[in-house]
Amino acid sequence: MAVQTVASTTDTAASPVDLGPAAALSCRECGHRVPLGPVFACEECFGPLEIAYDFSAYDTEELRRRIEAGPANIWRYAPLLPVPADVATKPNINPGWTKLVKADNLARELGVTGGLYVKDDSGNPTHSFKDRVVAQALEAARAFGFTTLSCSSTGNLAGAVGAAAARAGFRSCVFIPHDLEQGKVVMAAVYGGELVGIEGNYDDVNRFCSELIGDPAGEGWGFVNVNLRPYYAEGSKTLAYEICEQLGWQLPDQIVVPIASGSQLTKIDKGLQELIKLGLVEDKPYKIFGAQAEGCSPVSTAYKAGHDVVRPQKPNTIAKSLAIGNPADGPYVLDIARRTGGAVEDVTDEQVVDAIKLLARTEGIFAETAGGVTVGVTRKLIENGVLDPSLTTVVLNTGDGLKTLDAVAGTGLTATIRPNLESFREAGLV
Amino acid sequence: MAVQTVASTTDTAASPVDLGPAAALSCRECGHRVPLGPVFACEECFGPLEIAYDFSAYDTEELRRRIEAGPANIWRYAPLLPVPADVATKPNINPGWTKLVKADNLARELGVTGGLYVKDDSGNPTHSFKDRVVAQALEAARAFGFTTLSCSSTGNLAGAVGAAAARAGFRSCVFIPHDLEQGKVVMAAVYGGELVGIEGNYDDVNRFCSELIGDPAGEGWGFVNVNLRPYYAEGSKTLAYEICEQLGWQLPDQIVVPIASGSQLTKIDKGLQELIKLGLVEDKPYKIFGAQAEGCSPVSTAYKAGHDVVRPQKPNTIAKSLAIGNPADGPYVLDIARRTGGAVEDVTDEQVVDAIKLLARTEGIFAETAGGVTVGVTRKLIENGVLDPSLTTVVLNTGDGLKTLDAVAGTGLTATIRPNLESFREAGLV
Ligand SMILES: Cc1ncc(COP(=O)(O)O)c(C=O)c1O
Ligand SMILES: Cc1ncc(COP(=O)(O)O)c(C=O)c1O
Ligand SMILES: [Zn+2]
Ligand SMILES: [Zn+2]
Repeated sequence: MAVQTVASTTDTAASPVDLGPAAALSCRECGHRVPLGPVFACEECFGPLEIAYDFSAYDTEELRRRIEAGPANIWRYAPLLPVPADVATKPNINPGWTKLVKADNLARELGVTGGLYVKDDSGNPTHSFKDRVVAQALEAARAFGFTTLSCSSTGNLAGAVGAAAARAGFRSCVFIPHDLEQGKVVMAAVYGGELVGIEGNYDDVNRFCSELIGDPAGEGWGFVNVNLRPYYAEGSKTLAYEICEQLGWQLPDQIVVPIASGSQLTKIDKGLQELIKLGLVEDKPYKIFGAQAEGCSPVSTAYKAGHDVVRPQKPNTIAKSLAIGNPADGPYVLDIARRTGGAVEDVTDEQVVDAIKLLARTEGIFAETAGGVTVGVTRKLIENGVLDPSLTTVVLNTGDGLKTLDAVAGTGLTATIRPNLESFREAGLV
Repeated sequence: MAVQTVASTTDTAASPVDLGPAAALSCRECGHRVPLGPVFACEECFGPLEIAYDFSAYDTEELRRRIEAGPANIWRYAPLLPVPADVATKPNINPGWTKLVKADNLARELGVTGGLYVKDDSGNPTHSFKDRVVAQALEAARAFGFTTLSCSSTGNLAGAVGAAAARAGFRSCVFIPHDLEQGKVVMAAVYGGELVGIEGNYDDVNRFCSELIGDPAGEGWGFVNVNLRPYYAEGSKTLAYEICEQLGWQLPDQIVVPIASGSQLTKIDKGLQELIKLGLVEDKPYKIFGAQAEGCSPVSTAYKAGHDVVRPQKPNTIAKSLAIGNPADGPYVLDIARRTGGAVEDVTDEQVVDAIKLLARTEGIFAETAGGVTVGVTRKLIENGVLDPSLTTVVLNTGDGLKTLDAVAGTGLTATIRPNLESFREAGLV
């Protein structure tokens, strides 16, 4: 398959691929439509392409029943995703349907009275929300005949691609900054694919992948977050679907979402809008809040300055999974935060660590640094009076503490004793 | 609450605790019954106490419907567990309903033609099957009025107790060998409870806890795997329930289970027997296989020698979670393996590592060393003609690779390059 970066209007024949309700790709900027294919930028304006769906045949209550009778993973939402109807029968890692934890202890500590929930995506197969997006990209890769799965990754995506490729019988070759956490490196490597460290930060890795995609060396490669990005990105809609279904088919009032490239936040908004249009939830206002680490806060900096564009930064934070200094969807995040009445905020690395410990101590959830960012930002936004504690609030934990052990490495044994009561008493624990 | 180790027959009043269908404690050796309480050894013969149930009111098809309509966690089986009927409304970490993965790639590599499945318990909240047992012990601790949760642990149990205690508002104090893997130590500590390292191996830790329980220092403490052991142990039944329900309410032909104390294997058998008696599955023969690491193989050594008793060993293996040299339920494991026509086998540390990589490469599942033990033993049993590859086989992965990174630490970057195509080509990956 020839590598294309922009769609050609000469592709006018009906698309031969079956990706369920996905009808075409449509430019987010100018609305130009092209057939489904492994392309990501508009040929007219170079804007990002998104999936356009045909949901016209759905009856609301029948759709709801179909979803509720579906499997306990993202494929219950197959009618709303760019995947074939029989997707659940194909080898995939089947992420999703993770716990929405009612966080009453954390709510008490933060003073939230309107109901606080943690959507805990550490329960996914490779323990981050990235399994959701990779699962979509994998189906697109299958449809387009790719044989190698690839990506640029801040760590979690690498593991998710490695695992999904292994299970589905794809070759994989993933690219990461060379200095990631041990847990992320080992997990990315253990599935047996190629794992390439790049001397540079994520933005360097990403630039390199864009080069590779235009080169013969990258032929036949599906880069989940580059040439398959329109499909990949739709996976984050499932977070919106699950949260609403788990709340009893209701919109939350407020959601706090981490931002790296901004794709996840953007698609959560898209998912909520779809549920409203389909009549699956009652329409009412909701606010989306974006969360970054101070050491990589290009979007919150732009938000606070009232800018529409995002100025790139050089990341320096322990929240490595969010360390994208030049976020592709930054401007859309700004739009959504402003349109919904939300905000974008950042916290220091110290606040990230405190928040990881707070969530662990109150709810028994061990989050990675990205979860420390969202919990920390939630606390800050409440303190600043920006987030309303009397409203229903959902905070995302998108990753797993076992992958960022160094953040809490100070945490360890309270005492070391010899195996007898005397030694125990000496330790002063009773 | 006074600490009791053996039950007293003066406790003849009706038990005041509501633990659902649990009717009494009954001695596994002599059948002596005592009321429900925080006791674990028979006053007549010092045999282990087990939960005796009253399931007489259940109608099979109504029970099946009730289970199927239940939550996507172990509480769907609340009617079969020692927990109150409203258990799902209480703060608990709600483990279970983990994936049963159809492992076709692994089956091909191992030559299994009858259907091979991996029950992947790394999807639990703290990423091991221990969340299942702790969830039960927690409800018993609540019923008996304990305020501190404790345990002796080879690592996974420590994290599970820490998380569950945090969420349910218990104090916790857990005891581990001082030299465990970093991931297990940090995870056990991060929830904010006391974590005490003991200079010695697990068997030393366990002996110390038995001492502590008889001492005033341990008053008011619920040791999940000591004085709450009868309740705790029942959690492993849910693995049997889930496997059968996920197979469409059918018994598998063969199950491969890891052995540390032997509790899990014993209760999986109990769970299968209950499903048969309740009519939820059709009765047919099944075989249970036990798996150990060669460096801690007291049960497989006894099995191969044809002994009924298990001679303690001093553990020396990378499979630290299974490193119990003096397994409490060893003799029952021998009984079950022999009665069902199964076997007990062990593999070397090298075979454990190979099996971890094999499972990762074929199915995208990253197991801890305990999963390497079961997959490795499965391979060995097939090669030796003991496990029949033409039968439906379920292999348990009870833990998570992120907690035992050192086992595969050799796995890492394929190459490190500068962010340009020339450097990529030089690395020889294309
Ligand atoms: C754990 C975690 N959370 C959140 C994100 C943010 O993703 P996005 O790039 O869609 O903003 C990432 C991205 O790598 C991540 O790894
Ligand atoms: C991952 C894992 N698997 C299996 C076991 C075996 O448990 P049991 O003591 O019930 O045999 C353990 C015990 O610690 C464990 O941590
Ligand atoms: Zn355009
Ligand atoms: Zn007895």
